Amino acid sequence: MAGNSFGKLFNLTTYGESHGPALGGVIDGCPPGIDLDVEAVQNELDRRRPGQSAIVTQRKEPDTVKFHSGIFEGKTTGTPIGFVIENTNQKSNDYSHIKDSYRPSHADYTYDQKYGLRDYRGGGRSSARETACRVVAGAIAKQVLKGIEIKAYVSSVGTMALDKPYTELDLTQIESNIVRCPDQGVAAQMESYIKEVRSKGDTVGGVVSCVIKNVPVGLGEPVFDKLHAELGKAMLSINAVKGFEYGSGFHGSTMYGSEHNDAFNTDGTTKTNYSGGIQGGISNGMDIYFSVAFKPVATLIQKYETIDKSGNRVEMQGKGRHDPCVVPRAVPIVEAMAALVLADFYLINKMY
Amino acid sequence: MAGNSFGKLFNLTTYGESHGPALGGVIDGCPPGIDLDVEAVQNELDRRRPGQSAIVTQRKEPDTVKFHSGIFEGKTTGTPIGFVIENTNQKSNDYSHIKDSYRPSHADYTYDQKYGLRDYRGGGRSSARETACRVVAGAIAKQVLKGIEIKAYVSSVGTMALDKPYTELDLTQIESNIVRCPDQGVAAQMESYIKEVRSKGDTVGGVVSCVIKNVPVGLGEPVFDKLHAELGKAMLSINAVKGFEYGSGFHGSTMYGSEHNDAFNTDGTTKTNYSGGIQGGISNGMDIYFSVAFKPVATLIQKYETIDKSGNRVEMQGKGRHDPCVVPRAVPIVEAMAALVLADFYLINKMY
Amino acid sequence: MAGNSFGKLFNLTTYGESHGPALGGVIDGCPPGIDLDVEAVQNELDRRRPGQSAIVTQRKEPDTVKFHSGIFEGKTTGTPIGFVIENTNQKSNDYSHIKDSYRPSHADYTYDQKYGLRDYRGGGRSSARETACRVVAGAIAKQVLKGIEIKAYVSSVGTMALDKPYTELDLTQIESNIVRCPDQGVAAQMESYIKEVRSKGDTVGGVVSCVIKNVPVGLGEPVFDKLHAELGKAMLSINAVKGFEYGSGFHGSTMYGSEHNDAFNTDGTTKTNYSGGIQGGISNGMDIYFSVAFKPVATLIQKYETIDKSGNRVEMQGKGRHDPCVVPRAVPIVEAMAALVLADFYLINKMY
Amino acid sequence: MAGNSFGKLFNLTTYGESHGPALGGVIDGCPPGIDLDVEAVQNELDRRRPGQSAIVTQRKEPDTVKFHSGIFEGKTTGTPIGFVIENTNQKSNDYSHIKDSYRPSHADYTYDQKYGLRDYRGGGRSSARETACRVVAGAIAKQVLKGIEIKAYVSSVGTMALDKPYTELDLTQIESNIVRCPDQGVAAQMESYIKEVRSKGDTVGGVVSCVIKNVPVGLGEPVFDKLHAELGKAMLSINAVKGFEYGSGFHGSTMYGSEHNDAFNTDGTTKTNYSGGIQGGISNGMDIYFSVAFKPVATLIQKYETIDKSGNRVEMQGKGRHDPCVVPRAVPIVEAMAALVLADFYLINKMY
Repeated sequence: MAGNSFGKLFNLTTYGESHGPALGGVIDGCPPGIDLDVEAVQNELDRRRPGQSAIVTQRKEPDTVKFHSGIFEGKTTGTPIGFVIENTNQKSNDYSHIKDSYRPSHADYTYDQKYGLRDYRGGGRSSARETACRVVAGAIAKQVLKGIEIKAYVSSVGTMALDKPYTELDLTQIESNIVRCPDQGVAAQMESYIKEVRSKGDTVGGVVSCVIKNVPVGLGEPVFDKLHAELGKAMLSINAVKGFEYGSGFHGSTMYGSEHNDAFNTDGTTKTNYSGGIQGGISNGMDIYFSVAFKPVATLIQKYETIDKSGNRVEMQGKGRHDPCVVPRAVPIVEAMAALVLADFYLINKMY
Repeated sequence: MAGNSFGKLFNLTTYGESHGPALGGVIDGCPPGIDLDVEAVQNELDRRRPGQSAIVTQRKEPDTVKFHSGIFEGKTTGTPIGFVIENTNQKSNDYSHIKDSYRPSHADYTYDQKYGLRDYRGGGRSSARETACRVVAGAIAKQVLKGIEIKAYVSSVGTMALDKPYTELDLTQIESNIVRCPDQGVAAQMESYIKEVRSKGDTVGGVVSCVIKNVPVGLGEPVFDKLHAELGKAMLSINAVKGFEYGSGFHGSTMYGSEHNDAFNTDGTTKTNYSGGIQGGISNGMDIYFSVAFKPVATLIQKYETIDKSGNRVEMQGKGRHDPCVVPRAVPIVEAMAALVLADFYLINKMY
Repeated sequence: MAGNSFGKLFNLTTYGESHGPALGGVIDGCPPGIDLDVEAVQNELDRRRPGQSAIVTQRKEPDTVKFHSGIFEGKTTGTPIGFVIENTNQKSNDYSHIKDSYRPSHADYTYDQKYGLRDYRGGGRSSARETACRVVAGAIAKQVLKGIEIKAYVSSVGTMALDKPYTELDLTQIESNIVRCPDQGVAAQMESYIKEVRSKGDTVGGVVSCVIKNVPVGLGEPVFDKLHAELGKAMLSINAVKGFEYGSGFHGSTMYGSEHNDAFNTDGTTKTNYSGGIQGGISNGMDIYFSVAFKPVATLIQKYETIDKSGNRVEMQGKGRHDPCVVPRAVPIVEAMAALVLADFYLINKMY
Repeated sequence: MAGNSFGKLFNLTTYGESHGPALGGVIDGCPPGIDLDVEAVQNELDRRRPGQSAIVTQRKEPDTVKFHSGIFEGKTTGTPIGFVIENTNQKSNDYSHIKDSYRPSHADYTYDQKYGLRDYRGGGRSSARETACRVVAGAIAKQVLKGIEIKAYVSSVGTMALDKPYTELDLTQIESNIVRCPDQGVAAQMESYIKEVRSKGDTVGGVVSCVIKNVPVGLGEPVFDKLHAELGKAMLSINAVKGFEYGSGFHGSTMYGSEHNDAFNTDGTTKTNYSGGIQGGISNGMDIYFSVAFKPVATLIQKYETIDKSGNRVEMQGKGRHDPCVVPRAVPIVEAMAALVLADFYLINKMY
């Protein structure tokens, strides 16, 4: 209930503050007998890792995952998989200046109001560092979902956007540049742009898009737990997300039914795919695709005025090692959350 | 698990097919001692009712709710509230033509594939008729949330959109026209447009926006169950929804941090509200606002080709009584789902 | 959370007070494609029905179940099954005398304290009438569990107890007498005894035992959701239950390990079955057997002193139509709850 | 769903095998602002620790708990509390002899059948070592439940039983002997008896009783989640438990209603307490008391015949360091599970 668990049958519970001794989690419901590729899990973590490139935060964290249970002789056993990621690079002194002040558009104020206190070091539980645990679990979920391909990529940075649908992009190129944009030309522009924004101590938002191929027909539950509703919740639960759309999305609201309906081929596939691979909340076997909007990071390397706990005006100076734009590092997080949703529905669907 | 329940502490479970004997539901977790205004519940149902105006489906259903439990001497008792809405106007013969065929962009195909069979009459469980139960529960949730004001309205129909933020609209005018758009001039244009679309046997999408005022600080849980994540799931679970954004939304992804950060006033309110009343997944006391994109209704009053169960091409003729545009009737549904989310978080927040 | 739902994948939510318009419930998660024998469901309800014999309450309630959804052309559809049982024989005037008083060992006091008010007519939600909905759902669960045989019977009334293990009883004789005790001689004695107790306006407790045969190996989850733990919860949730034991039970605590261990046969069955068909919380394919202790009904047809809401002493006179001993009517309720537990674990086990 | 979580609002998820690198867990929903006495948590663990006395297993495990999150400057923060207990004394070689064989009345066979494989070292996940995590969480739950006193004790070992109700015992004496029986004379006899049983390589069962004082009125939910039903489930989920009874228990089934009803005092307390502090599933403020039956430990230090995976007969020799009787070490586990149930209902009850 307190918000730190995700999924019903494939269930992840996470814990950890950005500057405590460790983050960790428990995956309950992972099917037994899977040959777990632990290196593949670490690789996904590395895609999310701070310090991985010139356009992300330069904080150094190795983010090494250690497994405590649920794996025996290389296979999952069906029992819960406990894991830990130690925090090795906490510099808690960095954060003493925010102990009594509320940074704008962070969770400082709301956490203090809700809980009556907060671990103020680096955002504590509200830090996006928490998403490392999601990536671990998502990497395992991917291994449950053999044959299903989940590919996310950066489709816009600020106003700089890919102008093509995913079907015209070469998704094998996503990891070939540090922006994780499959169009190399646009990626280069985005990279320059992010560097420019950072040089001003500013930040900028962006959009991550995701395509999921080879989803079997039948995943998703009717009414409240529609497949796209859970995907939407999953994405909106990622730090800094402001919007989610799938298939025709917001643009679909401007269309006529006569344009938007996806006519059937005789094999049950459809000629168009405005539905985004989901009809009535249930996968229809076509590609699932969606986009996720991220706001600009709230931490600026600038001076700004704000208030302290007592409501006094105070001047603060943003410092530390922050991302000028989160979307390159958000790509594996989006994939991880998509994998968690699908693994859960895959298991639930076995009951029918 | 099977998708027909919503909410943790304030929990709604619904049942019912569009052409079975009745729809109904159970609200478990409604606090005791609330003077329940049953007429106000029926009024909300009437806002969703078919046949209410010239621009919605002309099907006649009184949609009268009957309560079976949980209310005694005018007050809620804390025990589950069971309710039933009888289906009085089923014309099952209308639907025999779709028994063996799959209508494009409906759930016919996916339900058949998932369950191996389906109640083909009028969409069965996948019919938007199911949302009547949400409106009943939402109307009760509103009464739990004394002082909180939830107002939804139509902000676009097709490409015809309100060009003002909600703060410049007179939200008291929403119910003064049948489109439920607070700007009377735009509403009149939308009305004509919907009629024109219907006259062609076509349909069109639209957007419903929603503003929630007077939310106490502290609602929403960290990490996975962020307030906006649950709102997003709630909205995406409504039939025909393709997208959700809150606060600065997709537009926010094009902004700089220096523009987007909401500076504090000394009382903890903020000068701007790009955050949409939620920071770190927790309400901060500012207005919550969001938008929900609806695709065009899939049922057209036109001839079209599709396939039957055996994969043969068949020609069908759309008929019956359908909405040319769902957004006017979706307004109370959006409000209901918002109320369910808030009532749930309101109760959860009492544990702290 | 509020306690009116049971089961995870095969989920029942019930509502209804003993003297409101109706009881009802929703079964969510029933697999599709089951040829539902509605008459068999009604038969189970008839086994629980008031007025069925000379030793149970003489209240007349037909207890007819009506289904609202989830069944189409005789088959379950996989969508939620809504059902209603109308209360036809409420005599609310009967209960005005308890409006302001607390009957001893009833839930009057605790409900009033917890909720601040209560539907005082006939116990309201705390009435055992609620179990009718469990029997409906259990009867459907039994049809999901093809091949599994669940047989409950009365093993003691007061101090009058069967002195044989279930393996020496002829369980086909359970329904051959109104006590539902498989030993006809003992049953006759129990019947006389119950009549004698009733003639004094008194009541007496008893024990229901239950045997489940043909359970596949593997049902139940490790650690917290052990099969016997859920069975125990299920039984203890039935009105008037004070204890639960399975396999060797309380007697097992007096035994040595060298006596108690169940040695294996080469086919994985065991020579003895002190384990009661469950090892490590998971079914091992042997018979599951357990016993459930019921206290004597609290309503006596006698004068007694108690207190009113203000703490004043008042004299009351028990009246109405009550069971002198609940165990004969509890037999189908025990079976129903067992079926719900097994159906749930049967579906959960499909995820592996 | 997979059985490794307990509780709704105060929720514990555990992981860990007896011979993996570590056990651990996450407590989600612990209220913020509690001054956490970490030493008190360790003390509870020490009460459960192997090697603590002459009558328990002589395995040496320090069982030191380390906290990873959710505590800041000595207080709980409302965010999840992650913790780890390292396994320091695994001797995996000890267990190679059971790799391919099924020990009688253990979970070897059922785990293998359910999951298709198992971590065979020391019982893996089915080992009672898992209960260490419950004790950690229970010790924190106790600190949430200020003022509520939970005291468990050994009430029988084999056929050697305390012959007095708890009201005639001096519960302050429980920890004064290694059996944890509050009657010193009986305790001494039990101690000798356990030593005698051990000297034969045998084991014996026993009963743990528990008394909870100062419970506020109103805890527990109606119908399925009655307070005693959750207590029963909690206790039955502990390894080796075969039965649970509360209040008058099984004996209550032999009583008349005229004896069993608990007459009210004018302050709402009752003259007798056969109800065991719970009426209609809700605490009434009187003492809650219950008993839990434990079977004899299945591991004997004797030769025995069993089968291997292929169904061949094999001879085995029990060895290792095992408890001759689990009840002395089960006392803190029973208390921990009781605390978890109460903390959960305490938080749930805040919603009313």
